[in-house]
Amino acid sequence: MRAKNPSESRTVMTDMVLPSETNPLNNLFGGELLARMDRAASIAARRHSRRVTVTASVNHVAFNRAVPLGSVVTVEAAVSRAFRTSMEIYIDVWMEDRFTGEKTKANEAIYTFVAVDETGVPTEVPALAPETTLEKERFEAALRRKQLSLVLAGKMKPTEATELRALFMG
Amino acid sequence: MRAKNPSESRTVMTDMVLPSETNPLNNLFGGELLARMDRAASIAARRHSRRVTVTASVNHVAFNRAVPLGSVVTVEAAVSRAFRTSMEIYIDVWMEDRFTGEKTKANEAIYTFVAVDETGVPTEVPALAPETTLEKERFEAALRRKQLSLVLAGKMKPTEATELRALFMG
Amino acid sequence: MRAKNPSESRTVMTDMVLPSETNPLNNLFGGELLARMDRAASIAARRHSRRVTVTASVNHVAFNRAVPLGSVVTVEAAVSRAFRTSMEIYIDVWMEDRFTGEKTKANEAIYTFVAVDETGVPTEVPALAPETTLEKERFEAALRRKQLSLVLAGKMKPTEATELRALFMG
Amino acid sequence: MRAKNPSESRTVMTDMVLPSETNPLNNLFGGELLARMDRAASIAARRHSRRVTVTASVNHVAFNRAVPLGSVVTVEAAVSRAFRTSMEIYIDVWMEDRFTGEKTKANEAIYTFVAVDETGVPTEVPALAPETTLEKERFEAALRRKQLSLVLAGKMKPTEATELRALFMG
Amino acid sequence: MRAKNPSESRTVMTDMVLPSETNPLNNLFGGELLARMDRAASIAARRHSRRVTVTASVNHVAFNRAVPLGSVVTVEAAVSRAFRTSMEIYIDVWMEDRFTGEKTKANEAIYTFVAVDETGVPTEVPALAPETTLEKERFEAALRRKQLSLVLAGKMKPTEATELRALFMG
Amino acid sequence: MRAKNPSESRTVMTDMVLPSETNPLNNLFGGELLARMDRAASIAARRHSRRVTVTASVNHVAFNRAVPLGSVVTVEAAVSRAFRTSMEIYIDVWMEDRFTGEKTKANEAIYTFVAVDETGVPTEVPALAPETTLEKERFEAALRRKQLSLVLAGKMKPTEATELRALFMG
Repeated sequence: MRAKNPSESRTVMTDMVLPSETNPLNNLFGGELLARMDRAASIAARRHSRRVTVTASVNHVAFNRAVPLGSVVTVEAAVSRAFRTSMEIYIDVWMEDRFTGEKTKANEAIYTFVAVDETGVPTEVPALAPETTLEKERFEAALRRKQLSLVLAGKMKPTEATELRALFMG
Repeated sequence: MRAKNPSESRTVMTDMVLPSETNPLNNLFGGELLARMDRAASIAARRHSRRVTVTASVNHVAFNRAVPLGSVVTVEAAVSRAFRTSMEIYIDVWMEDRFTGEKTKANEAIYTFVAVDETGVPTEVPALAPETTLEKERFEAALRRKQLSLVLAGKMKPTEATELRALFMG
Repeated sequence: MRAKNPSESRTVMTDMVLPSETNPLNNLFGGELLARMDRAASIAARRHSRRVTVTASVNHVAFNRAVPLGSVVTVEAAVSRAFRTSMEIYIDVWMEDRFTGEKTKANEAIYTFVAVDETGVPTEVPALAPETTLEKERFEAALRRKQLSLVLAGKMKPTEATELRALFMG
Repeated sequence: MRAKNPSESRTVMTDMVLPSETNPLNNLFGGELLARMDRAASIAARRHSRRVTVTASVNHVAFNRAVPLGSVVTVEAAVSRAFRTSMEIYIDVWMEDRFTGEKTKANEAIYTFVAVDETGVPTEVPALAPETTLEKERFEAALRRKQLSLVLAGKMKPTEATELRALFMG
Repeated sequence: MRAKNPSESRTVMTDMVLPSETNPLNNLFGGELLARMDRAASIAARRHSRRVTVTASVNHVAFNRAVPLGSVVTVEAAVSRAFRTSMEIYIDVWMEDRFTGEKTKANEAIYTFVAVDETGVPTEVPALAPETTLEKERFEAALRRKQLSLVLAGKMKPTEATELRALFMG
Repeated sequence: MRAKNPSESRTVMTDMVLPSETNPLNNLFGGELLARMDRAASIAARRHSRRVTVTASVNHVAFNRAVPLGSVVTVEAAVSRAFRTSMEIYIDVWMEDRFTGEKTKANEAIYTFVAVDETGVPTEVPALAPETTLEKERFEAALRRKQLSLVLAGKMKPTEATELRALFMG
């Protein structure tokens, strides 16, 4: 399989924040944003793999900024690294103020998807060939995140996670 | 403020998996489950704090088991540790087979919520007093998770995260 | 078939009242509450029978208390009596005030479900063995309700409804 | 206030049965039908009273016929009797087969609504002047149903419900 | 096939405007109204043809009046002319003020649907026999609209659209 | 006000076709696509004007291609011409096959939005400065479409619509 660029899977989902999606402070529910990011990431994973894709995991997500009712939210997802049957998807979220149009970064998140065949069995995906500096940085960091994920899932001993050990041992 | 038990915030949300929530393999979308868990966790956080609560972060979540259309899904959320203005919520998800009724663990997740006043400013919450062995284990581990969260958010140096260092240095 | 206890079918569905579910006074629509109770009751009926279940009837329901936007609503359903192929489900609804957390009874309702096989034909269900005093009271009263239901449906003559006659003749 | 005819409040709500509203047998959920009937009845009550109206109670409802996915469902609601601040709404439900167009009666239901002012206080409504034979029959029977409702709510002693006593004493 | 009257396909869909369907000015989204009209028109087309029907086109639609939150909206659709496999549906939209009950015309729209068999192939439909003066006017004008539609789709040269030419040449 | 380029308002909304949005042939409802296009166009109009915007009209829309369940649909909207207080929005819709990833044009549509202030009064918008050949073509054709719109609304006599007359007189 030919390696693909992140731009081949990039998925842009722009939409408004509606009243049925907001909490008592009139801001977007965190859970709604998680669901939108999942849909965008799922499309990016499908564009990369041309397969049915299912959510395998979600990395730590911090909600640093409230997204008010009536904002325009843009979710942008692209494959940041491909493994044998799984893909890491990096998601950037921007919001635009309803009145000034000012665009600010609202969130980042990282989801992992697995490509499966029609019976649900994992199947191989193309490699990723990053191009820009940012794409290359995210590609490199994906390996460290994968180790962390394996450690957290109890599938790798912390002491074997060489990249992570280096980080914590300073 | 009087410390509270996890049972005072425990929230049970049982519901079916409907056709509009499923992917092409007829399993529940990961994003839908993330949104349901957010609603249940938000109620648990409110029950503990008696305040408006907003999602601050979601820990790493792994989706190990597909949840088929027509399953009954039970999301159970309770506060696992309270900090000054934030609360860690531990969420257990079970699913029941439509025909046999067999109940299996589908997922675990950990969300953090912050209590805020009517203007959105963080406000203090009661302490948590764990009772059962499981509640105590989760209470202890919450501190390690908070360190990891601070490290991942760039708010604490890895070398200062004493609990985590111990883990990786073996 | 082994008789089952009400606790084996008990179903708890806790959720918030969202803006899209409220009337012009900002209270939960009666119809939305009827639909939530139907979903919870349907799960309870399935848990008792391990069959597909369909709504057969809804008893008289009175809406005595408005449920405001932002409230937490808990719907609790359990089988109160089983007949040959049908089950009476007793549903209790509580609401919690958003700010004080005060929990008050908002509603009671009684639905009847029928267990069916894959072609929609009614099929036998286990008997119910009530345990607590309240469960026993509801079990007894279910027979009187069934008579009333048959009378209202024109399937039993009022003069043959011995339990009801006693009631009205004083 | 001028008395009004049932035709002045008659409300017709025709719509399809969509996949997200069906149970595992691919038939409309009972709870969805209860919610649609509530919306139609609420509009009929508002048309009669020109006030905000809230659901006060739902009479016994029997679901005699399954409504399959893809059917066209017509809900027709009209005020059948007005009391001082409340209105009884009679609802007829038809369904049309997707292929033959054959129209059959699927359900009947009776809801009671109360008219309220902007602060939620009950307020007077116009009388109802029935015209057709069917409207007159439903108007007469409404009184008996109101007695039953009061008895079931514990607000009238069964022995004082003169209309009902006559029925059960034969 | 027997010709049918417009009254045989007339479809009335009355419903409220809910918070989740309104824009920042608290008026119904244009897109929501377009979707409601599509559902009503689709039912009218099915009632005329007794076939599955799919939207073929929407004529120019002007939104002259805002429809506020809480209004009651009545969409009324009927076949205005039948061609070989397609049907023109004329849709009238009224709204009622929440407080005064005053009923005003909110919109008109014209959709075209095609009847198809189970494999999606267009199939013949009955002719339309208009009865009232308004039905006859709409029936006549439908031919002119069809020409305009063909011209706009590039399937007819403007100079061959004899009815339209007459219009523009005065 | 500085004139703006179409790229400053371009809005991309990518999403899947879900089961709750499909007709009996398992294709996207026409009405759902009209609603999605309205949301995307509304965002484009707001980005151009930095005002609340409301749908004023929808041009003739033809649905030439069915969009199957599970497809990825991309709606792309940009301002094609600005008048004093209104903006024409040109919308291109693509769909991707679930398996091959083949991308085909599914639809085109043209909506008109008006910018309004907080009380709903129309307010001036910046001019549009088209850049690419396609943008310039659409900009030119917008004037002809505006004349047609005025003629269809009865606000301009056909014989005064000089651009259109030229078209039909050949």
